[in-house]
Amino acid sequence: MSKHDDLKHRVYECNMALPRHGIVVHNFGNASGCDRKGGVIAIKPSGVLYELLKPEDLVVLDFEGRVVEGALKPSSDTKTHLVLYNSFPKIGGVVHTHSTYAVAWAQAARPIPVLGTTHADHLHLSIPCTDFMPEDRIARDYEIETGNQIVDTLSNFAYEEVEMVLVAGHGPFSWGATPEKAVYNSMILEQLAKMALLTLQINPQAPPLPEALIQKHYRRKHGPHAYYGQDNPDAKNT
Amino acid sequence: MSKHDDLKHRVYECNMALPRHGIVVHNFGNASGCDRKGGVIAIKPSGVLYELLKPEDLVVLDFEGRVVEGALKPSSDTKTHLVLYNSFPKIGGVVHTHSTYAVAWAQAARPIPVLGTTHADHLHLSIPCTDFMPEDRIARDYEIETGNQIVDTLSNFAYEEVEMVLVAGHGPFSWGATPEKAVYNSMILEQLAKMALLTLQINPQAPPLPEALIQKHYRRKHGPHAYYGQDNPDAKNT
Amino acid sequence: MSKHDDLKHRVYECNMALPRHGIVVHNFGNASGCDRKGGVIAIKPSGVLYELLKPEDLVVLDFEGRVVEGALKPSSDTKTHLVLYNSFPKIGGVVHTHSTYAVAWAQAARPIPVLGTTHADHLHLSIPCTDFMPEDRIARDYEIETGNQIVDTLSNFAYEEVEMVLVAGHGPFSWGATPEKAVYNSMILEQLAKMALLTLQINPQAPPLPEALIQKHYRRKHGPHAYYGQDNPDAKNT
Amino acid sequence: MSKHDDLKHRVYECNMALPRHGIVVHNFGNASGCDRKGGVIAIKPSGVLYELLKPEDLVVLDFEGRVVEGALKPSSDTKTHLVLYNSFPKIGGVVHTHSTYAVAWAQAARPIPVLGTTHADHLHLSIPCTDFMPEDRIARDYEIETGNQIVDTLSNFAYEEVEMVLVAGHGPFSWGATPEKAVYNSMILEQLAKMALLTLQINPQAPPLPEALIQKHYRRKHGPHAYYGQDNPDAKNT
Repeated sequence: MSKHDDLKHRVYECNMALPRHGIVVHNFGNASGCDRKGGVIAIKPSGVLYELLKPEDLVVLDFEGRVVEGALKPSSDTKTHLVLYNSFPKIGGVVHTHSTYAVAWAQAARPIPVLGTTHADHLHLSIPCTDFMPEDRIARDYEIETGNQIVDTLSNFAYEEVEMVLVAGHGPFSWGATPEKAVYNSMILEQLAKMALLTLQINPQAPPLPEALIQKHYRRKHGPHAYYGQDNPDAKNT
Repeated sequence: MSKHDDLKHRVYECNMALPRHGIVVHNFGNASGCDRKGGVIAIKPSGVLYELLKPEDLVVLDFEGRVVEGALKPSSDTKTHLVLYNSFPKIGGVVHTHSTYAVAWAQAARPIPVLGTTHADHLHLSIPCTDFMPEDRIARDYEIETGNQIVDTLSNFAYEEVEMVLVAGHGPFSWGATPEKAVYNSMILEQLAKMALLTLQINPQAPPLPEALIQKHYRRKHGPHAYYGQDNPDAKNT
Repeated sequence: MSKHDDLKHRVYECNMALPRHGIVVHNFGNASGCDRKGGVIAIKPSGVLYELLKPEDLVVLDFEGRVVEGALKPSSDTKTHLVLYNSFPKIGGVVHTHSTYAVAWAQAARPIPVLGTTHADHLHLSIPCTDFMPEDRIARDYEIETGNQIVDTLSNFAYEEVEMVLVAGHGPFSWGATPEKAVYNSMILEQLAKMALLTLQINPQAPPLPEALIQKHYRRKHGPHAYYGQDNPDAKNT
Repeated sequence: MSKHDDLKHRVYECNMALPRHGIVVHNFGNASGCDRKGGVIAIKPSGVLYELLKPEDLVVLDFEGRVVEGALKPSSDTKTHLVLYNSFPKIGGVVHTHSTYAVAWAQAARPIPVLGTTHADHLHLSIPCTDFMPEDRIARDYEIETGNQIVDTLSNFAYEEVEMVLVAGHGPFSWGATPEKAVYNSMILEQLAKMALLTLQINPQAPPLPEALIQKHYRRKHGPHAYYGQDNPDAKNT
């Protein structure tokens, strides 16, 4: 028993949701969650297969990356997660996957334009894509620089409104107020990436969704005038 | 117990069929059904996950949209459904999804041409696509205007013969004499959308199916000379 | 009990294999098998869902299409099957599906070229595609004419070597010495159709497989010098 | 009981993993493994369905291809496997599949470029593609020549670093220090092939991953400075 058991169980469930959503293969990808009051994050251990993962395998670290609990090495992407937790003060979870269609856009080094209302239901801007990391940054601390690149790319956006990004040549990272929301964002990103690719196959000149439709759909679900879902937080709302 | 239990159970089953057919993810999409004698429709509550949905969660409304029964808020698309029920007097069910390939055509803002007999078995015309909704209509009552747009787009067709439409930039709506038929139409639309996209990838100049073949296939299954399926309504016909 | 029970059970199993292989949706498609000594064929009834189908539902007909046994109407494609049984004297089974990628090629009205050894393992020629049926033939007996079109298209080939065809704008038909082989051919055709489409997406000028490789692979599995599989017919050969 | 039972069980499990990973259909494909001390390899028998395969069906041969144990004929690709075992002295397993996307690249006769870090995590070079086999080599011993072609194509690479290849017009072969690693490589190759195809659909001019990123990702997982995964071999590392 440990005081971090709740966090570890929760982050364990988030990691196990990734293969169930079909957005990771083998041991790729990782989900983390943080307890800001407790000053810790929990993250998947490095290189462990999902089918062998247990809640007690999760590694608990403080916000400087010192291991607080856990016998295994944390994910090799841990430093990237930490940069995000330290830069985005309101997030509670981070997820990284190599999901097929999101990776295709990242490898194509293209942001995903807002082509439809499914996208606008979640964010009112293109899903941004970083530049390819230059050699000098790679030579420093690669995983920290990956985090820095994401933060730089997000500098023109509100991270609470754009909760996902493509790292050029690599793949998607997503985050959210909770680890569950970060998992959800990863799943949605893959779906948006697939729909956008298919749209451009049908019509390579497909226009972006008109701004008024983008705003209408985004505001249906976000902000003070949202009216989607249930008002009562005890209802089966999501 | 309520006098609407039968309708609620039936519409519940129709909603649950959507994830089983692979045409919705998460809590997207919604199915409704109506009881014209009873003057009510039943529809999925807003933002509820399919795996948590129960028959008693379905919301029952009259044809003006007043809630008759149910503790949860109805789907945010309810007004669109109501416009369709009020405009198409013979329909008994409406379904809206964000199924991947149908959304791709909607985002491409292109009607789906009749490229083969699978399409002609179901409808003898292209699957129409609305225009993008202009800003002034969005500013009025968006969900009512979505219904109005669909009705406008269908004005040149018989709604009993064209039971599906793409809303530009958004996704598909389908309907039918029963809620089960509306679900079936959503599933078929997704299949037709996928086949049409693949056809144009093989042959971007693929011609539409010759009109004589379209009519032959449509009339095999529809109208007074149909000879597909079983005559006896008690047979395992569909 | 009937003397046709064995045939009906066998053809039932072949029909049930179609949804399991993912090559039919809903009630589309049909498999038949024949007993040439007994002078009968068994075929799926028209418009029945696979999940409701039972062995006793299969319809038994003679080679002129007269129902010998069965309470339900036979598949609307029965006459097409009969033309094939009557024209191709060594076949024992016929399958028709609307499988996604094969339909895409049929709708594109393009034969599937021999692009690789997976194709050549099964046939040493392109998978042929009929012309679109002209209006005068449609006006006669459509299903018989579909069979005639297939037979015409096959007239330059040995039907024992080319056991599959695309009907332009419609979809695939396959056949074989047994109903099980016809099912297998439908499944393989779908796989070949998908691989061919993807190949041309990578390299629109992908050349056909060199003839020497085609012959080598085809002869490894067919004819007097075949050496693939097990010699002993009791071995687990396929 | 036989002294080769351990090897047979292990190679049996590797063969059974192929359909589970979705990289073989029907009886296509084969996995083998070798016991270099014992001087034998075990391989799938020819033409046997995976669902019927049992551990005792595996065929054991010496490195010259003489059957040591087993009642069935070995895979028709056995000689290709043997060329690889005899040419690549440190490998312990070989896998051949007709997985869909890898076959598409092989049929397109194109090497798969390094477009992203998922690729670079596994190899720092394009996945090579052989030439189409010329007629004179086909006429000799086809399966031996397939092996020779692979060895020729690999002559400019370290086979321990490039553990996969496309045979033009045919499909993928992979290998590794163990049969399990060879299976893993087949699964990864299919994923890389799919991601690369989709990337080029989004951006036909997608640039290769910058060399510094390729080296960074490859060295994270390979060689003396690797830091991915767990240090303790008893940990749940992969």
